[in-house]
Amino acid sequence: MRKPSKRRSLKTGLPPGTMVHVGERKVERVTIDVIEYNEREIKEHRIDNPDTLVTCMNNRNSVAWINVVGLHDIPTLEKIGQAFNIHPLTLEDIVNTNQRPKLEDYGHYLYLVLRMLYRDKTDGTLVVEQVSFVLGSHFVVSFQEMPDDVFDTIRKRLRTNKGQIRKKGGDYLVYTLVDAIADHYFTVLEDIGDRIEDLQENVLTATGPDTLRTIHAMKRECIFLRKSVWPLREALGALQKSESPLMDAGVAPYWRDVYEHTLHIMDTLESLRDSLSGALEIHLSNIGNRMNEVMKMLTLIATIFIPLTFVAGVYGMNFEYMPELKWRYGYAFIMGLMIATAVAMTLFFRKRKWL
Amino acid sequence: MRKPSKRRSLKTGLPPGTMVHVGERKVERVTIDVIEYNEREIKEHRIDNPDTLVTCMNNRNSVAWINVVGLHDIPTLEKIGQAFNIHPLTLEDIVNTNQRPKLEDYGHYLYLVLRMLYRDKTDGTLVVEQVSFVLGSHFVVSFQEMPDDVFDTIRKRLRTNKGQIRKKGGDYLVYTLVDAIADHYFTVLEDIGDRIEDLQENVLTATGPDTLRTIHAMKRECIFLRKSVWPLREALGALQKSESPLMDAGVAPYWRDVYEHTLHIMDTLESLRDSLSGALEIHLSNIGNRMNEVMKMLTLIATIFIPLTFVAGVYGMNFEYMPELKWRYGYAFIMGLMIATAVAMTLFFRKRKWL
Amino acid sequence: MRKPSKRRSLKTGLPPGTMVHVGERKVERVTIDVIEYNEREIKEHRIDNPDTLVTCMNNRNSVAWINVVGLHDIPTLEKIGQAFNIHPLTLEDIVNTNQRPKLEDYGHYLYLVLRMLYRDKTDGTLVVEQVSFVLGSHFVVSFQEMPDDVFDTIRKRLRTNKGQIRKKGGDYLVYTLVDAIADHYFTVLEDIGDRIEDLQENVLTATGPDTLRTIHAMKRECIFLRKSVWPLREALGALQKSESPLMDAGVAPYWRDVYEHTLHIMDTLESLRDSLSGALEIHLSNIGNRMNEVMKMLTLIATIFIPLTFVAGVYGMNFEYMPELKWRYGYAFIMGLMIATAVAMTLFFRKRKWL
Amino acid sequence: MRKPSKRRSLKTGLPPGTMVHVGERKVERVTIDVIEYNEREIKEHRIDNPDTLVTCMNNRNSVAWINVVGLHDIPTLEKIGQAFNIHPLTLEDIVNTNQRPKLEDYGHYLYLVLRMLYRDKTDGTLVVEQVSFVLGSHFVVSFQEMPDDVFDTIRKRLRTNKGQIRKKGGDYLVYTLVDAIADHYFTVLEDIGDRIEDLQENVLTATGPDTLRTIHAMKRECIFLRKSVWPLREALGALQKSESPLMDAGVAPYWRDVYEHTLHIMDTLESLRDSLSGALEIHLSNIGNRMNEVMKMLTLIATIFIPLTFVAGVYGMNFEYMPELKWRYGYAFIMGLMIATAVAMTLFFRKRKWL
Amino acid sequence: MRKPSKRRSLKTGLPPGTMVHVGERKVERVTIDVIEYNEREIKEHRIDNPDTLVTCMNNRNSVAWINVVGLHDIPTLEKIGQAFNIHPLTLEDIVNTNQRPKLEDYGHYLYLVLRMLYRDKTDGTLVVEQVSFVLGSHFVVSFQEMPDDVFDTIRKRLRTNKGQIRKKGGDYLVYTLVDAIADHYFTVLEDIGDRIEDLQENVLTATGPDTLRTIHAMKRECIFLRKSVWPLREALGALQKSESPLMDAGVAPYWRDVYEHTLHIMDTLESLRDSLSGALEIHLSNIGNRMNEVMKMLTLIATIFIPLTFVAGVYGMNFEYMPELKWRYGYAFIMGLMIATAVAMTLFFRKRKWL
Repeated sequence: MRKPSKRRSLKTGLPPGTMVHVGERKVERVTIDVIEYNEREIKEHRIDNPDTLVTCMNNRNSVAWINVVGLHDIPTLEKIGQAFNIHPLTLEDIVNTNQRPKLEDYGHYLYLVLRMLYRDKTDGTLVVEQVSFVLGSHFVVSFQEMPDDVFDTIRKRLRTNKGQIRKKGGDYLVYTLVDAIADHYFTVLEDIGDRIEDLQENVLTATGPDTLRTIHAMKRECIFLRKSVWPLREALGALQKSESPLMDAGVAPYWRDVYEHTLHIMDTLESLRDSLSGALEIHLSNIGNRMNEVMKMLTLIATIFIPLTFVAGVYGMNFEYMPELKWRYGYAFIMGLMIATAVAMTLFFRKRKWL
Repeated sequence: MRKPSKRRSLKTGLPPGTMVHVGERKVERVTIDVIEYNEREIKEHRIDNPDTLVTCMNNRNSVAWINVVGLHDIPTLEKIGQAFNIHPLTLEDIVNTNQRPKLEDYGHYLYLVLRMLYRDKTDGTLVVEQVSFVLGSHFVVSFQEMPDDVFDTIRKRLRTNKGQIRKKGGDYLVYTLVDAIADHYFTVLEDIGDRIEDLQENVLTATGPDTLRTIHAMKRECIFLRKSVWPLREALGALQKSESPLMDAGVAPYWRDVYEHTLHIMDTLESLRDSLSGALEIHLSNIGNRMNEVMKMLTLIATIFIPLTFVAGVYGMNFEYMPELKWRYGYAFIMGLMIATAVAMTLFFRKRKWL
Repeated sequence: MRKPSKRRSLKTGLPPGTMVHVGERKVERVTIDVIEYNEREIKEHRIDNPDTLVTCMNNRNSVAWINVVGLHDIPTLEKIGQAFNIHPLTLEDIVNTNQRPKLEDYGHYLYLVLRMLYRDKTDGTLVVEQVSFVLGSHFVVSFQEMPDDVFDTIRKRLRTNKGQIRKKGGDYLVYTLVDAIADHYFTVLEDIGDRIEDLQENVLTATGPDTLRTIHAMKRECIFLRKSVWPLREALGALQKSESPLMDAGVAPYWRDVYEHTLHIMDTLESLRDSLSGALEIHLSNIGNRMNEVMKMLTLIATIFIPLTFVAGVYGMNFEYMPELKWRYGYAFIMGLMIATAVAMTLFFRKRKWL
Repeated sequence: MRKPSKRRSLKTGLPPGTMVHVGERKVERVTIDVIEYNEREIKEHRIDNPDTLVTCMNNRNSVAWINVVGLHDIPTLEKIGQAFNIHPLTLEDIVNTNQRPKLEDYGHYLYLVLRMLYRDKTDGTLVVEQVSFVLGSHFVVSFQEMPDDVFDTIRKRLRTNKGQIRKKGGDYLVYTLVDAIADHYFTVLEDIGDRIEDLQENVLTATGPDTLRTIHAMKRECIFLRKSVWPLREALGALQKSESPLMDAGVAPYWRDVYEHTLHIMDTLESLRDSLSGALEIHLSNIGNRMNEVMKMLTLIATIFIPLTFVAGVYGMNFEYMPELKWRYGYAFIMGLMIATAVAMTLFFRKRKWL
Repeated sequence: MRKPSKRRSLKTGLPPGTMVHVGERKVERVTIDVIEYNEREIKEHRIDNPDTLVTCMNNRNSVAWINVVGLHDIPTLEKIGQAFNIHPLTLEDIVNTNQRPKLEDYGHYLYLVLRMLYRDKTDGTLVVEQVSFVLGSHFVVSFQEMPDDVFDTIRKRLRTNKGQIRKKGGDYLVYTLVDAIADHYFTVLEDIGDRIEDLQENVLTATGPDTLRTIHAMKRECIFLRKSVWPLREALGALQKSESPLMDAGVAPYWRDVYEHTLHIMDTLESLRDSLSGALEIHLSNIGNRMNEVMKMLTLIATIFIPLTFVAGVYGMNFEYMPELKWRYGYAFIMGLMIATAVAMTLFFRKRKWL
């Protein structure tokens, strides 16, 4: 799992509102894609000069979705911040890619930050990336670090005017974006769920240390997801109850829906956690049982031979007067005795269910 | 346990309100059964064309219960949705049979989704199925995937005009349906409780790995039930406090009653969970004790024979001057000594309670 | 412990308000004892025909306590319900003796159901029985399954006009009844507490499997009590805050008092639980330690003799040229060497605190 | 630790408000010490006849602190109750020395009951004693079982007119008394903390069963303290928010302060608990490790000698044709071989870090 | 970790508001540094006589930051308290350096106490120190025990007029100070996080008792941090919701920001805790596995040799008639048999995956 960097300490001692990009992964240069749409028309263009964004700000006839990719170019981001009148603390949070998911209401805009999960298109590893949304009266600015995202289906829907998306405002756009992110959480959870089910089938036979490591790796993934979803739940709960004029009443059922999704994700995570604990318990008691079985078997072998060795030792003694030694069938008799003893002990152990 | 499918990921990337049936089990074709009743009369008919449902919608003199079986035929469901003016998000939740139990108030109707548990009439396996209720001013639409259900007694009660059911409105009908579902939860819980009691009796003697697997299987069932009942409790709690005009004040005690039932189910589940943990603890310490007893017994046998073997070894030495070897009763004396040693050690071990 | 039966499933599929007695234990026939009292006079009589209860209902000058024993005779109970205008759901809960403790406010009466614990007078086993109270404006109806109860002291107090009981209303009577039940909880808790203290003293010496079983049996009792007291606490908390006109303000401190008692019971239960967990931990680590000590001792014996046996084996070899064998004191020397080795090993083990 | 007696069951079946002294420890006779003070003067006298207390009640120019020692003389306490118009339930709680800490507002007085901890002056054992405060408009009555207490510093402060105590009312006096009690909790906690720190240092070397017993004894003390402090926290929280006219607004910060102290005590208790759990974990894994080390060492010794014994056994065989036996240096060679084997095995075990 | 001293018991029995410095570490003498600033100018001076502070109190044109280092000189602190009209309880809390982090609103000032963490500049050990803030209308008094602190960057920012700090009031100054402290928490957490990651890599190979001790030491650090941050979170939550006129509305988003930081710190702490528990689990099961492997290997060696020794013992018997002994190749045959047996057992053990 590729997680966001945690070098938060880079920021220690800087004044609040200072923008410091703590991430490692950077695109070559910042790209700004603008999609302006209303029910009748849609315009897409890539902007070079952030100063031209003021026109979006002023065009009140359509909703503008400004998607900013790349967070390392502080001056450009500052210009975007000025164009949309974004508070310095918000800008600081946007570039500090180790934010706790949260919702903040700044009056003229809502700021929502959360984590996007998706699989890298080339190598399939899980990527965790911070996404920030600034929702104004007729614009949505989204900030992400890398060009890959989970929003392609929404762009397509905008272009093809499918569903209600072009008929509704910026709040509905943010909802569809958040819903797309939540849907990808389910994909990741199903993936983990499948692996846990595989594990539960193998756990009764596998005894290697790999199983332990796998269980703990999955536990860590669950902890990480929980840490991402728990505050997201709070943020969406706050959003659902928000009385901001930026939130249209008609969109409320949709927010309630995506909030219910996070509850469902939490439930599923808890179940996965319980399943993992169960698998761990079975695994550990399994290993213990196997080891016990081995030790019991070995000890049984030793226990059968030790008395026999004693008998052999007795007749290896060098006493002058040992009448059995002179007997014609003494050897055969003793050998028979020893075999009989071994058989009797084996039967006894089997009867006691020790063997 | 047959659970609802979890292929939620099929929905990833689709616009909200898109109906996707994620379940596997489908009936041949969707059936729509309508029961229209009031205190005086009752009419039952199966409808082919969902467009005719608008007449139910308009007939305000009786309560209409529309029971829809089969969720795979999206166009038919869309028509039902139009007939009763159901929100696209509700329709999406109805067909997505992996919903978290919840209550949603859409103003002109209440949407309640929960899980129904029952035993298959043919093979007795436990079936888990999602049921959705749409409660309007004088109609109730229920959606389920398969024709089997737990509502037969209620149909009978409607036909025979038994109890108050024909005298009351749609809210009372939904209550009786939910109450029937809750009653089946108790049946399942009693079944698990009986199995746990059997287990507790066997756990002191059984040592096989089956017991461990049984305990974990039952633990998983409890986790699953808990995951179903916990949000149901929330939903019914919300319903009980609901101030929707669709809920008649006279029905409130009934909702409180069924809410108390879910509390009782939760309590019982917690107790079962504790009992299972106790059984697991006893089982594990039992296995450990048995293994310890075996090892102790084996080690005792070895410990008695090792000193004897040493003595035999001593008199097997080939020294020229070993006076005991020449004695007339040396052999008998040494054998006696060894037997005495063995007896003394056995008594000592028994005295120390090791044997 | 004799618990109420759990055959709740008998009710599955019946209309709400249907009275089904789920218990097993039945008295011959239902008895109805009426005590009518006010500050000046007290009348006690046993009633045969429940229809005559209407006179109690109408006599507003005194408080009537109607104690109904036996819940199997549904028609009689229905008549009592009619006499006091009791809601069908309440009647259903009264006869369904597997109810969760709760308080319900039906306007013209309060319904309180809880569990009574007492020791059987003949054989001393613990009996758990459901008691229901219906508190109206000037009457109290109590329902129980068996004639034994914990209310004898209250009857005596009523007859002797001791304390304030005859001066106050029905709410005070219910309080004294509930208080008597709560007092018996303390008796049971003290009993368990004494047994846990015995256990804690024995746990360091006892190692048999009985201790484990005793601990788990007591744990189960604690779980059962907790399940009974937890909802009782909620019910009494609700009662304390109740603004029902049936509750006189002067009685409020008494309800607060009995509510505090349930808090105290909960605290005590939690402590007992912790004590049990501690006793279990000590017991398990004790058993482990004892087993380890045994195994260590046995292994030490083997470890001392194995090298000696090796030495004896060496001088049992048949090499032609073994000069020691020819020595005059070879045997004595080797025996001395072996004894010295054994002593040295013993001392070494003792120094390392292994012995 | 000397705890208050728990024979609560003595009270079963008695009417509410019946005073029963459940404790064992009694002073010879009840003493009543009165301190009347205002900013200018202070009077101390011991009263024999509780009827004279009415004068305190009537003297509104000074604050009266009536300290009652000894709870077994019910008639005397009843007279005190009449003098100050104390509710029967309060009197019942005062003598029932197994009360849950709580605050109760009876309008004309506040009743606060809590537990006082101090070390016995003679033998240093920890004493737990219940203290009750009745705070009226210009009087404070405190009830305790034994003459020893933690209030001597406050009496001195009253006499020397040190601090603000003589300038303020009865509520401030109760605050200083509660504060003195809370301070003694800290002393006890520090004592336990010191013992835990000692334990944590010894836990790595000590292996005896004493350590386990010490840890569990301290755990029990923590559980007991927690049980005392948790409801105290609730009581003081309620007191802090109390809008009783008996509480002067100027004293509010002091109550907040002592409330913060209880929060601090809870935090410290939680930390101590965690530390104890950690110490227990280290102790158990330590014991396990040591035992494992012993067993490993013993098994290693056996493992080295068993193959050697086998070799000696081989050359103890009596075959006629065994060429090695005839060799001149056969014995020396075999002895060398055996020593080499032992050295090689030792080195191998050491290389594998088994030794 | 150097923690604040805990000799809280020194205070037992003293009147509330008595200032007792419980710490050990003292500077030579108390220093008082005053920084007075507004948007235009900044003045820094060190004050000897605390009486001159009244001028700060009276100068309402600029914000005064009075930083007091050293808490042992009670008279000086009392004079400071008089100059700013600080409540005796606040002064008591300031010098009692074992305070629970909290916020208290005294009307004319807010009192905030929390813990500052930083690394000592000379030896790098972690220092924990209590810092108190008194926020008045146009002044901030901060109290600390030692001259080292985490505020140097803020002093620099004040001097250079960087950011908004000189434009805003005392509440903003307190915010920047608290923010600087919170930033240092992140540094410490990252440090612990790095060590846990190192640990997780080593835990699979390391088996010494050091690992256990390291894990428990880190657990204790986490517990200590949690104990510091948890009440800090409460205090900042209260501050954020505070309606004190001392808090400017414009500063609210900043407080919300630092409050979110404490939530983030709590989340991170919980994750670290989970990681530590996971590491401990792996470590313990690792140690167990390794020990089991060793014992299994040793037991296998013994098990292979014990039957061989028995065979050798058999042919060491001295029976007169043992035909094998006379055979020409008896010795070679038996030796071959023994080698074959050893090989067969080894293969069998390997096949069963025991070796």
